[in-house]
Amino acid sequence: MARDRTPRRKGRPVDYVHLTHPFTPQSVFSDDAIAALHDAALGLLEQHGMKILLPEARALFAAAGARGMGDMVFIGRDIIANALTTAPRQWRMRSMNSARERQYAPGQLLFGPGAGCPNATDLVRGRRPGTLRDYLETLALQQSFDVIHILGPSVEPQDVAAPLRPYAMMQAQICRADKPMFVYARGRAQVQDSLHMIRLGLGLSEDDWASGVWAYTVINTNSPRQLDNPMAQGIIGFARAGQASIITPFCLAGAMAPVTVAGALILQHAEALAGITLSQLARPGAPVSYGGFSSNVDMKSGAPAFGTPEHLKMQLGSGQLARHIGLPWRSASGSASNTADMQAAQETTHTLWGAMLAQATLVVHAAGWLEGGLSFGYEKFINDIEALQTLAEMCVKPGDTLDDFALDALAEVPPGGHFFATAHTMARYDGAFYSPLVADLSNHGQWTESGALRSDQRATAIWQRTLANFQPPAHGEQAADRLAPFIAARTAAGGAPPLD
Amino acid sequence: MARDRTPRRKGRPVDYVHLTHPFTPQSVFSDDAIAALHDAALGLLEQHGMKILLPEARALFAAAGARGMGDMVFIGRDIIANALTTAPRQWRMRSMNSARERQYAPGQLLFGPGAGCPNATDLVRGRRPGTLRDYLETLALQQSFDVIHILGPSVEPQDVAAPLRPYAMMQAQICRADKPMFVYARGRAQVQDSLHMIRLGLGLSEDDWASGVWAYTVINTNSPRQLDNPMAQGIIGFARAGQASIITPFCLAGAMAPVTVAGALILQHAEALAGITLSQLARPGAPVSYGGFSSNVDMKSGAPAFGTPEHLKMQLGSGQLARHIGLPWRSASGSASNTADMQAAQETTHTLWGAMLAQATLVVHAAGWLEGGLSFGYEKFINDIEALQTLAEMCVKPGDTLDDFALDALAEVPPGGHFFATAHTMARYDGAFYSPLVADLSNHGQWTESGALRSDQRATAIWQRTLANFQPPAHGEQAADRLAPFIAARTAAGGAPPLD
Repeated sequence: MARDRTPRRKGRPVDYVHLTHPFTPQSVFSDDAIAALHDAALGLLEQHGMKILLPEARALFAAAGARGMGDMVFIGRDIIANALTTAPRQWRMRSMNSARERQYAPGQLLFGPGAGCPNATDLVRGRRPGTLRDYLETLALQQSFDVIHILGPSVEPQDVAAPLRPYAMMQAQICRADKPMFVYARGRAQVQDSLHMIRLGLGLSEDDWASGVWAYTVINTNSPRQLDNPMAQGIIGFARAGQASIITPFCLAGAMAPVTVAGALILQHAEALAGITLSQLARPGAPVSYGGFSSNVDMKSGAPAFGTPEHLKMQLGSGQLARHIGLPWRSASGSASNTADMQAAQETTHTLWGAMLAQATLVVHAAGWLEGGLSFGYEKFINDIEALQTLAEMCVKPGDTLDDFALDALAEVPPGGHFFATAHTMARYDGAFYSPLVADLSNHGQWTESGALRSDQRATAIWQRTLANFQPPAHGEQAADRLAPFIAARTAAGGAPPLD
Repeated sequence: MARDRTPRRKGRPVDYVHLTHPFTPQSVFSDDAIAALHDAALGLLEQHGMKILLPEARALFAAAGARGMGDMVFIGRDIIANALTTAPRQWRMRSMNSARERQYAPGQLLFGPGAGCPNATDLVRGRRPGTLRDYLETLALQQSFDVIHILGPSVEPQDVAAPLRPYAMMQAQICRADKPMFVYARGRAQVQDSLHMIRLGLGLSEDDWASGVWAYTVINTNSPRQLDNPMAQGIIGFARAGQASIITPFCLAGAMAPVTVAGALILQHAEALAGITLSQLARPGAPVSYGGFSSNVDMKSGAPAFGTPEHLKMQLGSGQLARHIGLPWRSASGSASNTADMQAAQETTHTLWGAMLAQATLVVHAAGWLEGGLSFGYEKFINDIEALQTLAEMCVKPGDTLDDFALDALAEVPPGGHFFATAHTMARYDGAFYSPLVADLSNHGQWTESGALRSDQRATAIWQRTLANFQPPAHGEQAADRLAPFIAARTAAGGAPPLD
């Protein structure tokens, strides 16, 4: 379905899979200010420390020379500096389908879906707590559009018992998709089983497994300055397995972070550096990404806000900090809107442009996110795909050959004439322009006759058609056969309870 | 109303009136390609010419050495080059309220409202042909928000006879607003009466009148390569009156322009250069702006598309061409959507960012435009104001003083604590963040209890309240008294018929 609608240019499909940033990264702080923010974050870690709940993680820091006091760890700047020399600048995101593989590197642009939503919503069935069915459907949506580059935990399948949930989510990602995968860091047992399933299901050799990153996880610190057990285990476990951790403090200015952009970024940066350092202590050279997802709260209600000027400024500042330390980094778009309306589109579009100008390597929550992540919207997803495809097209420069200049056509068409029938137009007619997915360009009369549907209403038919036409990739059946005995055994054993 | 909602930062209102571009302008073409596009436009004018219907305009070109043949004028590149040396790089946009005045100059950022719409639409009264009431209401909306910097002909008052329409529109702009004004170029008689009304109504001295630009007009060529009588009269009349013409070809790639971005831009550039040159031949040094409003058509229906990748690329290319010739320039946002939905917000937000990155001096159609300009949407206007205010906030860099770094607060709040009650937060609480106009940040339960209103539905109450609270500026009553006899006399004489 998605492929059918991929616009063509001179008969060739536009590549929505391999995107490189087209814009110069933009700044909100001077280089001196960025250096000072970085220094302030180092000072915070050194003098005031991080609370790290996991003894194993504290031991790694202590072995590197960090001072400890109870569960507080004071991380000297030399330890951070060392970690930043071993953290890789890029890695290969692997997939069963080599056409889906990407380099995760500064300057590359990857989009991930809205993730971590406890609820799902669409215009047909309304808003409901997420189920496995919702997860499978939204996974199929992710898989169906080339402009979504990595899988994400779109909807939480709450009808699957927590200890069994990773088996359901991994089975689906392995068998029903072929993009780089996401694994939740909910304790060592779940992580180990999830990574094992990838190797088992895809039949990977040791060499295959070691040759790149098959799965990533997102590590959220508990701002301010705290790292809990599952997150610390996740960092260590992913590092030792050679898989990618994306360290993403979620710093809400005015609540869990200072009320200023600069203050919130210092906290974000300190927490991210602590996480990055832990990964390098667990295994030097382990793939680890800088992450920033800082915004502000609504000072009236305390609710998180997205798409605000403060959010955009923090995106740009985060990009500067990531470039300062030289690592690839993850940003996010976002919306606080409760429904797929103009607010939702505006907030998401603003933050997509913010991520473009901040030159984020990975933009998560790029499609389908509503209610600040409490709900995954099917119609919102389809409309967001339109925005992502538009930005993907911006990664291709317009042609600048003599042929593109159309000098013959310009000479041929007289004043007041038109270019519809020129040879230049006729030769390029098919696929000359982006072909909209959900945007309706018809005039008001035609639109009214077609039922006067808003873009959210039109999107319903598109996700329904996408799901109806969905075909899992060819490797899925064999992978399912390989996984079945393992899943049965682990299920019989009660699964793997998440770590608190 | 608008002022009540202006967010405060450290107790001081954020200035939404005086905006300077915060971003580095972005390119889609190499500098060499831009030089080649410029050269191709010069070649087109020189070898293939423009059809210029107005004999007076042809005479001005002939006097400058241009070759003529019938109503075709072949404009040598030396004539263009001369015009570009006399065209001013900036000018002062004047207003009765000095606090509203702006420099129209490269690097400055001005927003204008959706303009030229034959219809008006809102959720209460539906879509209807525009009336004087709609024009007056939408003028009040323009006047009420600081982030709209110049007035525009939002809705066409079709219930006022065409020969009398300029008197109604100028009376309203002069008496019910205090921002730089718009005058339609619909023939010499209308233009002269409109400009006379400004001087008369505001009681301007010769010095006042000559000290800057009180009114602007938009000149649309008839692409390809044709300039009609009212437009040519407008260029000449505005130039001789020292008022500003904004030369804006409307080049739709695939219809009235070549199907390629480069080809359409060559045509746009040639037509803009011809108009700029005519203004300088009429009066060297006359204020004249480069303009670009090129997009593509939907190749299925031939309908204009907005917010597409091709539209965005043409915005960026237009900015490069404007910088190549060193003139300030006008871009536009736009939407083809038939209603105030996600498509509308997405297309408009994309093109606002496009204009920001193309460093447009003036962005017209920035609020309220629907149906590719066939309808002015009240709820769309309110939602667009939110986008404009967000972009206006981006013109202010975040603070980078030690005080902004919040080091004491960062040291004071323990791991797992919060910053709500720190002295740093309390001192900045009021006005720390942008305060949304129409975005609803409440959670799903609160939102549902409040009626589950979409942002377009919430916007209704906001425009209603804005209109209910609207107060014309203080000078309005006296201006109305000054204008009344003139309007009565011109009305008695039948007004000024528009020139075809």
